[in-house]
Amino acid sequence: MNKKVGIIGGDLRIIRLAEILAEDGYIIYTYALDKYNFLNKNIIKCNKIQEINSNCQCIISGIPFSKNGVYVNTPFTNEQIQVEELLENIQNNTLIVGGVKQNIVDNAKKNNIKIVDLLEYEELTILNIIPTVEGAVQIAMEETEFTIHSSNCLVLGFGRIGKLLSKTLKCLGANVSCMARKESDIAWIKAYGYKEIYINELEKNLNNEYDIIFNTIPVQILDSKKLEYLRNKKTLIIELASSPGGIDFEKAKEYNIKVVKALGLPGKVAPYTAARYIKQTFKKVFEI
Amino acid sequence: MNKKVGIIGGDLRIIRLAEILAEDGYIIYTYALDKYNFLNKNIIKCNKIQEINSNCQCIISGIPFSKNGVYVNTPFTNEQIQVEELLENIQNNTLIVGGVKQNIVDNAKKNNIKIVDLLEYEELTILNIIPTVEGAVQIAMEETEFTIHSSNCLVLGFGRIGKLLSKTLKCLGANVSCMARKESDIAWIKAYGYKEIYINELEKNLNNEYDIIFNTIPVQILDSKKLEYLRNKKTLIIELASSPGGIDFEKAKEYNIKVVKALGLPGKVAPYTAARYIKQTFKKVFEI
Amino acid sequence: MNKKVGIIGGDLRIIRLAEILAEDGYIIYTYALDKYNFLNKNIIKCNKIQEINSNCQCIISGIPFSKNGVYVNTPFTNEQIQVEELLENIQNNTLIVGGVKQNIVDNAKKNNIKIVDLLEYEELTILNIIPTVEGAVQIAMEETEFTIHSSNCLVLGFGRIGKLLSKTLKCLGANVSCMARKESDIAWIKAYGYKEIYINELEKNLNNEYDIIFNTIPVQILDSKKLEYLRNKKTLIIELASSPGGIDFEKAKEYNIKVVKALGLPGKVAPYTAARYIKQTFKKVFEI
Amino acid sequence: MNKKVGIIGGDLRIIRLAEILAEDGYIIYTYALDKYNFLNKNIIKCNKIQEINSNCQCIISGIPFSKNGVYVNTPFTNEQIQVEELLENIQNNTLIVGGVKQNIVDNAKKNNIKIVDLLEYEELTILNIIPTVEGAVQIAMEETEFTIHSSNCLVLGFGRIGKLLSKTLKCLGANVSCMARKESDIAWIKAYGYKEIYINELEKNLNNEYDIIFNTIPVQILDSKKLEYLRNKKTLIIELASSPGGIDFEKAKEYNIKVVKALGLPGKVAPYTAARYIKQTFKKVFEI
Repeated sequence: MNKKVGIIGGDLRIIRLAEILAEDGYIIYTYALDKYNFLNKNIIKCNKIQEINSNCQCIISGIPFSKNGVYVNTPFTNEQIQVEELLENIQNNTLIVGGVKQNIVDNAKKNNIKIVDLLEYEELTILNIIPTVEGAVQIAMEETEFTIHSSNCLVLGFGRIGKLLSKTLKCLGANVSCMARKESDIAWIKAYGYKEIYINELEKNLNNEYDIIFNTIPVQILDSKKLEYLRNKKTLIIELASSPGGIDFEKAKEYNIKVVKALGLPGKVAPYTAARYIKQTFKKVFEI
Repeated sequence: MNKKVGIIGGDLRIIRLAEILAEDGYIIYTYALDKYNFLNKNIIKCNKIQEINSNCQCIISGIPFSKNGVYVNTPFTNEQIQVEELLENIQNNTLIVGGVKQNIVDNAKKNNIKIVDLLEYEELTILNIIPTVEGAVQIAMEETEFTIHSSNCLVLGFGRIGKLLSKTLKCLGANVSCMARKESDIAWIKAYGYKEIYINELEKNLNNEYDIIFNTIPVQILDSKKLEYLRNKKTLIIELASSPGGIDFEKAKEYNIKVVKALGLPGKVAPYTAARYIKQTFKKVFEI
Repeated sequence: MNKKVGIIGGDLRIIRLAEILAEDGYIIYTYALDKYNFLNKNIIKCNKIQEINSNCQCIISGIPFSKNGVYVNTPFTNEQIQVEELLENIQNNTLIVGGVKQNIVDNAKKNNIKIVDLLEYEELTILNIIPTVEGAVQIAMEETEFTIHSSNCLVLGFGRIGKLLSKTLKCLGANVSCMARKESDIAWIKAYGYKEIYINELEKNLNNEYDIIFNTIPVQILDSKKLEYLRNKKTLIIELASSPGGIDFEKAKEYNIKVVKALGLPGKVAPYTAARYIKQTFKKVFEI
Repeated sequence: MNKKVGIIGGDLRIIRLAEILAEDGYIIYTYALDKYNFLNKNIIKCNKIQEINSNCQCIISGIPFSKNGVYVNTPFTNEQIQVEELLENIQNNTLIVGGVKQNIVDNAKKNNIKIVDLLEYEELTILNIIPTVEGAVQIAMEETEFTIHSSNCLVLGFGRIGKLLSKTLKCLGANVSCMARKESDIAWIKAYGYKEIYINELEKNLNNEYDIIFNTIPVQILDSKKLEYLRNKKTLIIELASSPGGIDFEKAKEYNIKVVKALGLPGKVAPYTAARYIKQTFKKVFEI
């Protein structure tokens, strides 16, 4: 395998990834990361995309590659780089690995560039749940004046994040309630020893004194009617579902309910761990 | 709701269910359970199916209703009752709730009897995992001269049983390895802190000193080739997958490897708990 | 170090210890274990104590060495061996390692035999708590028709066994209550997330529906007055405290309360693990 | 019981305590907390100590009452209050409950004031371990770029804090090693499933890649010689032992090792929980 890898843009996770790969013996050619000062000599700063072209057959991009489809995601440079222009300047047959959405893949094909979307690897998605859950716990610790131990926590949704979050909260000593829609999830909730709440019983349960509510459901579950039950209470709501999320933020503000949006946690609370997970997945892709 | 319920046949779980329902205020009419001596006065022994017909609109049967499709499953009587004959003798519009397979359902329809198959309720299946896992642990404790604490356990398969079993073994202090086929399961195995083993690495891993191997996979995974690695070792294998299971029993015997078949655990190790789960599901069905 | 070790008497733990030491390369000379058929060629059966004398400077005895101070503890032979006679026949300066009580130590000194009492090693006592707790759990599983999961367990006493037992029950999904006398123990009980019960509130708490009560207190705590609360209930009591224990057995019998005495668990449920712990402690003693 | 309680000085824990007691129906007379704006109408701000004298027979002070023995601990006022002067101005037979050291107790006696030192209640000390451990975890999360899950953690000391901290780290998925001096602690460390490190093996173990070291030992254990092993590594050290603690801070700085001092955690990370614990202990004292 060619041990030269290009990196274009990306956040702290990609920076840590560059460092980890360099420690593993790769030569890394970076572009659009100029605000970060790398110490490792195997990490080479490129001023032109052509320097990457002439050295690397594989390029790692940010996750996501682009936030809006127009500009590349490059928080560590002041320059703005257009997606279209970049793809035109990358040489044929280069492999780009990153968080790449469909429209960019289509564009890339026109330029004979191969694309691998890391976000399609279920393994990476699952591994990212670990720092997501730790981040949610960290936020809960920071935003409250009480311990998670002995607190009453409600987790909305028993999907991937809900499962690991409930386990973690319980092992920290919280009283954990979980709300789910499916009978089979309710059965699992009982099996794991949490208090089960059917979705149609959520409203009356909001009368209970929950200290923290974690939402993992991406459709509006805490609407204005339900938020009324939390009025004048000290409940903290932590929103883990991606936009638009499950909470009527306007109403929550009006009712003076504290809501913390907690998105992109792996990159924020554990960029090093997140980078290690990307590396794992990257190596699988690259070495096949 | 009519508080009179008939019960025909079944094992210790059904007997405990009769007792629980009687304590809840139901009048229970039993048939084909004559070897068991009920103490509760709300449980009435019927000598003829007609006594049930004239009192009950709902009948609970064993799980399964019949093991072979020909005779009703009645371990607590010496009589043999034919499925076909029984269905003919039950009056029209009666509801039978139990572990009823499709061919019996078809037969019942001809006689205008309604059937509810409890085994189709995913909730019940999931709840039964709890006594299944405890039973597996109990067998592991009984069949070994060492503690589960500090032992090396390998769980084959990371489905429902594999998940709860791994959690339980770990919390008892075992070193837990899990084998799975899917990348996403491997990611979960890591997330939960077990040692992950890819299916194609099983063979070389069998060189390790596993004290106990739990199989949950219903296709032959421990074939003669793999069993050779366990020859002359003290590994105990506990088979949790339903017949034909995942182990070449002939070879295991030849190689002097100890295999314990552990099937129908809920009814064996925790009939009372199993009965409570059936009641829960039964009540949902009945009260709609 | 001399790799020849004598073994006189003892139960299955000592037999497993002989096998483990033989696998480690020791030559083992056994006496008074004739009912067991050793397969390892490094284990030599002696018919006379003199064979041990002429080979070994160190002898391992049973735990305890003697149950009554008169005869040696030798369940694996039909012969009866007097302590006094044995000590006279062992040559000067031999080291005996085992579960040896003070009066035997005194006797040994007269014969110029050195004695090490393994039971004085706190480390061994603590390690033995692991198989004791697993054994208690195994008994609870075997003696009940319900799962430990979701059951209501009361642990009397929060000493060494109480602590590890409560942790294990909780991780199996039980609702765990602990009774203690000291304020500091009550605080720990809360910290670990169990329900705390002050000793003076035990009586009124016995009105609760406990499924299993584990006693670890060696003075009578469940006296006739307290047992009255358990009359006509299905509570199982498991006695883990050494004789005379904490339960009025006569009354319990009269009140039809099921009590299981669970003593000497490490040797019964996990002789191999117990042997490994003895070996660890033995090696420390011997190699100094 | 008289439902009027005075409060003089103290930090956020005492403020939360005032609020909790007010919600419980007490009338609270505060002095030297003027920088905090109480909303509850049952909390009355006093400008003179005499207002407390004429209403309250019991006064709660800060924990500690005084940091230096000269001035009262009053972070929520700009005034400085002398201990001696205050004690002279409090009327005879008043009961002061707080974190009161011996010299102040002696002084109080001269003025016929009764003192209860809350820090002598072992229960409160133990309960405070819960927020201490959560605080340590929170700091570990905040100060690292990786997850606690899968990280290598070393806990120095297996006393009260060490025990609960190890349990918490393990349940978060860390690989936990514990160092202790006593054989019995080493045995417990094994029983709980952590990696045991004898104190005399610490040095060679520091060659391992620990991500985080938590120190709970109040004597210098990480001296210059041991810190050398951590030179040029990324290990984070969190100091939980009270001053002077267990780390050679000068050397750590010289060797570029990151050390975070984490003292007084309950008041910092969970003042509300800490207040609840104080209330519990206070009520016991007061109502006897």
